Amino acid sequence: MLNKTRLLTPGPTPLPEQVRLALARDMLHHRKNEFATIMHRVQARLRILFGTEGTVLPLSCSGTGAMTAAVHCLFHPGEKVLVVEAGKFGQRWGEIAKSRGLDVATLSAPWGQAIQPKAVEDALKSDPAIAGVLVQLSETSTGVLHPVREIAACTRKRSQLLVVDGISAVGLSPCPMDEWGIDCLLTGSQKGLMLPPGLALLALSERAWKKAADVPPGCFYFNLIKERVNVEKGQTLFTSPVNLILGLDESLSMLLENGLEAVYAKQWALTMLTRTGITALGLRLFTPQNFAWGITSALLPDGMNGVQLLRLAMEKYGIVMAGGQDHLKGRIVRIGHMGWVDWADVTAGLYALNRSLAELGGYSGARDYLEQALAAYTTALNGVPGQMPLLTHS
Amino acid sequence: MLNKTRLLTPGPTPLPEQVRLALARDMLHHRKNEFATIMHRVQARLRILFGTEGTVLPLSCSGTGAMTAAVHCLFHPGEKVLVVEAGKFGQRWGEIAKSRGLDVATLSAPWGQAIQPKAVEDALKSDPAIAGVLVQLSETSTGVLHPVREIAACTRKRSQLLVVDGISAVGLSPCPMDEWGIDCLLTGSQKGLMLPPGLALLALSERAWKKAADVPPGCFYFNLIKERVNVEKGQTLFTSPVNLILGLDESLSMLLENGLEAVYAKQWALTMLTRTGITALGLRLFTPQNFAWGITSALLPDGMNGVQLLRLAMEKYGIVMAGGQDHLKGRIVRIGHMGWVDWADVTAGLYALNRSLAELGGYSGARDYLEQALAAYTTALNGVPGQMPLLTHS
Repeated sequence: MLNKTRLLTPGPTPLPEQVRLALARDMLHHRKNEFATIMHRVQARLRILFGTEGTVLPLSCSGTGAMTAAVHCLFHPGEKVLVVEAGKFGQRWGEIAKSRGLDVATLSAPWGQAIQPKAVEDALKSDPAIAGVLVQLSETSTGVLHPVREIAACTRKRSQLLVVDGISAVGLSPCPMDEWGIDCLLTGSQKGLMLPPGLALLALSERAWKKAADVPPGCFYFNLIKERVNVEKGQTLFTSPVNLILGLDESLSMLLENGLEAVYAKQWALTMLTRTGITALGLRLFTPQNFAWGITSALLPDGMNGVQLLRLAMEKYGIVMAGGQDHLKGRIVRIGHMGWVDWADVTAGLYALNRSLAELGGYSGARDYLEQALAAYTTALNGVPGQMPLLTHS
Repeated sequence: MLNKTRLLTPGPTPLPEQVRLALARDMLHHRKNEFATIMHRVQARLRILFGTEGTVLPLSCSGTGAMTAAVHCLFHPGEKVLVVEAGKFGQRWGEIAKSRGLDVATLSAPWGQAIQPKAVEDALKSDPAIAGVLVQLSETSTGVLHPVREIAACTRKRSQLLVVDGISAVGLSPCPMDEWGIDCLLTGSQKGLMLPPGLALLALSERAWKKAADVPPGCFYFNLIKERVNVEKGQTLFTSPVNLILGLDESLSMLLENGLEAVYAKQWALTMLTRTGITALGLRLFTPQNFAWGITSALLPDGMNGVQLLRLAMEKYGIVMAGGQDHLKGRIVRIGHMGWVDWADVTAGLYALNRSLAELGGYSGARDYLEQALAAYTTALNGVPGQMPLLTHS
């Protein structure tokens, strides 16, 4: 207990005090007016967050539950979908689609790289049987940002539905659903929304609602059509996760009070802070281009034991970071700087990383790595928001 | 705000302070050791609560999610199941089973009555194709307790799996899974466990695990086989609902500190309090026999507007009760006395009910209805626990 514990993982993130107090409220009944009033207020705010005029459904499940719901409600078994796969969560889209009996075509990029929009466009043009594209905006396992806006520019002109996992993106970087032309956008509560896990949010475009009306739901628990009818009355189809909704009411209030532009600018600046710090430390960024906001992955020096490194940072400095998944286990470190995390937390994380690296391998970066990182933060925060290169895919 | 609000609904129930403080804890990472330690402690306690030596799976969903998981993981599409239907949640079993493509045989009893064990036995004997029985222990829409122990005595000798929705029963009345021979027992967090909704718990018997290994899961999100592998490592398959698990750790600690016998004795005594009070008020019990613990349904006088009655009790006395569902809407009142509710709360509920009835119809019961109710409570609480007629089905 000599150090505080600081979560710098790509979800779940620390919780603001207002949210924690809301989570601790005594129970409300989910079929009574007081709760419906809160649900209606939350709905109006969710539409701003998602950038949609449609209904945003709160679902009592994890983000993977919402991914399952999207696949079950939007596609008939046997239909063909294109899965963009460049990490663990791209793979998950493929697994869910196969489990639903879909015909899965996979378009892969190496882990750490984003898919090229042209590759998606070519795949769609060459196979008119493809009924939808499943993609992450932010691939949490690597920290890559896929070119969802560019893909949407292609799918919106065609009949394919674009289904976007925004779990590590919504509330962290812009993803205006209606403006871009996304057909299904979903997220989880434990990332940009600064809540505990256990609540997912999902919205559909008008043409996705039309498609959903035509698909008999394959899983009783996930019935988006009936869910919408309930949400429009300020309820949910089954028992609502009441306390998480109360927490969501608080976190949305915090985000919108500051304005989404300011929230995104902060996340962008934290990303610049971390990337500059990692580079000044002498580590290689695992995602040199097309990187996500809110998460930075760094390659560890050859021979460095990543598991030991993370343990040291946690036990000696109280900093909790994530390692790599699957074949990247032990080889990369993933620093989450999303949700209720600020410049001082991330600076503490860089210090813990540097000290732990030095202890394990006599390895140390530039003497002024913290000053470099903080200067990058300040520059980014004071920059013109329009200059944030959120859509530059090279 | 002149009155406190008291939830006397059949879930969600009020939350104990210890649980609320646990819900408000800052985030832990669900893949780290500290969380795994809590998960292992919770697991040991859940096995006591469920009366099983098997693994009890925490699922991030509502109770209906767990019902869906059971049906998807235990039965192949096309298999035949027997659904016991005597209320809204019996109907839900049928809907879930049909949505999974099962061949559904329905054994009905009128709402307000329990099924006869003999009827289930006869149905199973006459149709060897039946692969499982789906039943509620407590049917929340009416307050009836189905004879699960007697049904289990029949199914355990045969090859049919007995799947029990214990959502309104676990933690309220005894349901020792292994001793009775139940193959799948599930519950939700917002009833006997005194937690917010959003967490479900599910356990399988050895023969149910064997069957599950043979059934390809029909819904990616609900994979009990993979879930068990994770739970045995102190994790969950997908992101854990961390705060609800922290709350569960507290509520299980409270229940087991008192001892399950004492908890059941209290629930039985509250049931006697409510039933005696309702009768003394001159109302008719909707479930004269085979009644559930934790919920009491009363028929309203002819011509009484039940919706108006509930509104009056809430607005004037702060007491929140539930009405009837479907064709019982407006005709019955359902008083929940489950979870974090005690004798004084229920007494307040009876007073609010009496005053509201009087205001609406000049209707009033015995002058000493509160004393009668409290005397019944004391007698029941001081009685020999073995005399609680939990298994007497007439």
